[in-house]
Parts: sequence; structure tokens; C-alpha cells
Amino acid sequence: MKTYQLNGTIYYCPVDLTLSVIGGRWQGLVIYSLREKAKRFNEIKRELVTINDKMLSQTLKKLVEQEILNRKSYNEIPPKVEYSLTEKGKKLLPIFTQMEKWGKEAVL
Amino acid sequence: MKTYQLNGTIYYCPVDLTLSVIGGRWQGLVIYSLREKAKRFNEIKRELVTINDKMLSQTLKKLVEQEILNRKSYNEIPPKVEYSLTEKGKKLLPIFTQMEKWGKEAVL
Repeated sequence: MKTYQLNGTIYYCPVDLTLSVIGGRWQGLVIYSLREKAKRFNEIKRELVTINDKMLSQTLKKLVEQEILNRKSYNEIPPKVEYSLTEKGKKLLPIFTQMEKWGKEAVL
Repeated sequence: MKTYQLNGTIYYCPVDLTLSVIGGRWQGLVIYSLREKAKRFNEIKRELVTINDKMLSQTLKKLVEQEILNRKSYNEIPPKVEYSLTEKGKKLLPIFTQMEKWGKEAVL
């Protein structure tokens, strides 16, 4: 049986694997918020409105581990840290384009 | 501010709305399992392997309420109930095509 692997977890279905990356509401929205450019923690937080610091930290950490996001810290005072999509992360964007399209048309 | 609505819930972002439909692992996988044809409860269950009856019932109920799935019951003995994608549900399939593609390529 063909299997797919991400960070040591084995999936039997490629869609299941992808859902593990974008499926959680916050993970999906954080990726989407970085579609155009790198952003700092507080910029992402402002955009996602109802997310709290703990949830955002956890979400960013997981996405960095999954190699979806880069975390770049600049040697400045005050310290500056930016998050951006990796090449692998950018390849998720066609999924978001389709999600955006469906969400706009779905209105009941 | 533009808003998007699904079953009485208001979203400020179309991607957030779509994630509420496909984002949960089981919801996404149930939709994906019906991409080609209508299926009965036990057929879906077999395909999803680790889902239990309660989770599958809840997931199907929610997707029927969201008008993503049709539930058709046939007047037979024993009773037969089939689930299939609605027109709105079918429009989600391009998202799954992209998820499948990414999942196949993502292997670390």
C-alpha cells in the first residue's frame, strides 16, 4: 500500500496528509495570511483578530516544524522576527485560491 | 466590511468559511470519499478505517445541514441510505484535487 509521510507521521491518503497541515482553522488561516509577504507575530495576530498569543505561538511552531514556514530573526534592537512561506508552503497556495473561490460563492 | 454566511454563521474571510466545511479531518475525508459516487454509511466507514460510528454519524449530519451532502433513503428492506455530494459539494472537488497533488509531492 502506498504511503505518504510528513515529519515522521505516515498517512495512507495524500488528502489526509494535506489536511494535517491546513485543516486546523488557525493553521489554514496563518498560511493564508502569509500568502503575499513575510509578517511579524503581531501583524499576523491583528489579521486573525480572535486568535490569542498562545494559539498563535503553537500554530507558528508547528508550521515551522512542518517546513511550511520560515522563521527569520533579525539582529536588531528590539528583536525582530518574521515568518514567511517556504517553497513547500508556497505550493499550498493553489489550494487556498480554490478555497477562497468556493467561500465567495457558497453564501446560502 | 464584506461578510460571508453559511448556515447562519458569519465569516469575515471566505477561506475561514471554507475551512469550517472541509477543515475538520473527518469532514474533509468524508467529502473526499464521495468524490466519485454515492455511498452507504458502512462503505464510507470502511474507507476511513479509524473513524467510529458516532464520529461518522455526526460528520454526515453536519455536512447534510451545510448542504454539502444529500441523504437519500430508499424504501427497501433492509432500509438503505446513501450519501452523495450536492451541487455545492461537488464544487469543493477542485480544492481536493489540489490537496491530493500537494500531499503526493510533500513527502519529506
